[in-house]
Amino acid sequence: MQFAKRLDNVETSAIRELFKLLGKPGIISFAGGFPDSAMFDVAGIQEAANKALTENAGLALQYGATEGFGPLREQLAAFMATKGTKDVYADNLIVTTGSQQALDLLGKCMISPGDKVIVEGPTFLATIQCFRLYGAEVISAPVDANGVILEALEQLIAEHQPKLVYLIPTFGNPSGATLSLERRKRVLELAVQYKTLVVEDDPYGDLYFDAPPPASLLALSSEVLGSREWLAHCGSLSKVLSPGLRIGWLIANAELLAKAVMCKQFSDAHTSTFAQATAAQYLLAGHMPATLAKMRKVYAARAHTMMHALRANLGDAVSFTEPQGGLFLWVKLTGQGGKLADANVLAKKAIEQGVAFVPGAPFFSQNPDASTLRLSFATADEDKIREGVARLAKAMAA
Amino acid sequence: MQFAKRLDNVETSAIRELFKLLGKPGIISFAGGFPDSAMFDVAGIQEAANKALTENAGLALQYGATEGFGPLREQLAAFMATKGTKDVYADNLIVTTGSQQALDLLGKCMISPGDKVIVEGPTFLATIQCFRLYGAEVISAPVDANGVILEALEQLIAEHQPKLVYLIPTFGNPSGATLSLERRKRVLELAVQYKTLVVEDDPYGDLYFDAPPPASLLALSSEVLGSREWLAHCGSLSKVLSPGLRIGWLIANAELLAKAVMCKQFSDAHTSTFAQATAAQYLLAGHMPATLAKMRKVYAARAHTMMHALRANLGDAVSFTEPQGGLFLWVKLTGQGGKLADANVLAKKAIEQGVAFVPGAPFFSQNPDASTLRLSFATADEDKIREGVARLAKAMAA
Repeated sequence: MQFAKRLDNVETSAIRELFKLLGKPGIISFAGGFPDSAMFDVAGIQEAANKALTENAGLALQYGATEGFGPLREQLAAFMATKGTKDVYADNLIVTTGSQQALDLLGKCMISPGDKVIVEGPTFLATIQCFRLYGAEVISAPVDANGVILEALEQLIAEHQPKLVYLIPTFGNPSGATLSLERRKRVLELAVQYKTLVVEDDPYGDLYFDAPPPASLLALSSEVLGSREWLAHCGSLSKVLSPGLRIGWLIANAELLAKAVMCKQFSDAHTSTFAQATAAQYLLAGHMPATLAKMRKVYAARAHTMMHALRANLGDAVSFTEPQGGLFLWVKLTGQGGKLADANVLAKKAIEQGVAFVPGAPFFSQNPDASTLRLSFATADEDKIREGVARLAKAMAA
Repeated sequence: MQFAKRLDNVETSAIRELFKLLGKPGIISFAGGFPDSAMFDVAGIQEAANKALTENAGLALQYGATEGFGPLREQLAAFMATKGTKDVYADNLIVTTGSQQALDLLGKCMISPGDKVIVEGPTFLATIQCFRLYGAEVISAPVDANGVILEALEQLIAEHQPKLVYLIPTFGNPSGATLSLERRKRVLELAVQYKTLVVEDDPYGDLYFDAPPPASLLALSSEVLGSREWLAHCGSLSKVLSPGLRIGWLIANAELLAKAVMCKQFSDAHTSTFAQATAAQYLLAGHMPATLAKMRKVYAARAHTMMHALRANLGDAVSFTEPQGGLFLWVKLTGQGGKLADANVLAKKAIEQGVAFVPGAPFFSQNPDASTLRLSFATADEDKIREGVARLAKAMAA
């Protein structure tokens, strides 16, 4: 059987292979990219689902508009407004089947084979693969503790004239980094100056520890003339409510949004109306602020416990920037005093000691840094985190 | 903003424009492609959703495997077995976000720009557009009352060496035609002989009126040596349970299925686990046979009412083959005695009279037949059907 040529650009991720090992009994996993199931507001979601079916089952179970379920679009626009976004109304967003589909639709709408796109190095693995499937050459821009480095980004934009620049400006996956306010404004200026679409992926922004992060690129776009036209924003309920609902959304200029709707029509017709009606009822009931407050507190405590344990158990063998929110800690093996500096080797030793994480190399579209690794502090409780880091220290010493 | 070149191959459908007119008060619509909301087993679905959340909310609301939710894959394999399919186990199918996504994944996996595919003329509009977005040239094979005409199909396969042949063999949309048993076996032989993937889209097969249709290509593949390797089967719960759940499935050989899983990972990660867990509980509870029995009876009565009314009101101005199931009646304007023979003109007059349908031309990827039109008998009750057909007769006379 002869498959489409586009499949030659992508391989099934090495991470998937690693995940198969996670079934080992007693393993402590820092490998996942998901929220803790124990954080789900099951009662609230169940109430919302029942309300969706009681109020209008005919709507909730029928085909719906490709753009999304009207009441959910209203609720999502209102949710964005609570986060400082101006002038985003229901008509300015479409509902997607998770924000992964927003990325897929952007790829389908924007990328012709051979086109270039710029992403952060490191970035979300599935974004790299998603864009490569549409034939993109994926260029990597370097990041530091304050997010993507602007001088390097501008140079790459000027050199490559990319179809789009993809960023996770807030609590990046896997970097944990947050783009500074100053850099955010500059990114918007670059978008206008070079007429380049900037895609802001923001699944983690609500999960801050102490203080809210800088305003999103979308919220700031009202301050940079013309930038709204060159900005696409991807939102998601996966990390803050439930990934299983598969509710994401895409905000973009009217022309791009219309193209995305056309592509979505032939991708999955529309996102589950049942899931959409459930999410709409949940938001309408006003549960979200309490749910978010609980998550922030729990994840902050876990992050601090993990950072403390890493310093205590691994000392100068590792370095990391403290994340201010999100789910991830991005760690560099320093190799100090001849200690292990290859995260792939460490990953294997760690599995033997009963702890798992994801090596950092696959998160780079170019120039992988094998000394890096991603730890999620989201799904293990604080005792498990302490025990897991102790095992990691044993693996380093083994 | 410069979009991807693939968008040049597709335009937003003319049908969408027509649908905007359906909001007119008092209009009777034969235009939809959806089941009647009044047929939904709301109580059964609500019970299933609650059970999914009560039994294991952590699973139902969390990220899930791209291949699909295990218990649903088991239930779908069992459902297929009740329909005569042999040797289809949970591992042989993946869950898709509606069967539209199965088509999208097949396009992504199989079609390189410039490749050819063969479809029936007429066929499901969104299939044509979906494949064109991947750069396919979509060739049209003629159909008669017994489905695609085999001599013509073989000639087209030999001439064009297509990447795939897409068929709706049972109660076709829009043709209403059912491929005969003899032709089914011959299609499977052609697949093997020409090493051509045949895609069987089967959303309507369960909705027969009197007797079950011939066995599906999938069920028959065990009788034609080697044909299972060259067959992909798309199933859906949209017409028999609820479109709003967005649950479809794809059955194919292991190699193709693995490629489809990889593409799905970057399309939407997975189908809503909440919707999947709900569907799994519904099937497990054993409600499906009663639900299907009820739908068959109601749709059969409506189809017969519509056919009777057409003969009584429009006489020799129209001709059609009696469908044995499904949702659609495919009508040809005969032009007898100088009567109107252009369905686009009739559609406009019909809207003025308060009745809507979809003209047939857009369902053809090549050589559109402007004298055809599609009537759905699924969503209007029998009184409305009689009134709607009477209005159609007025429109013909106007």
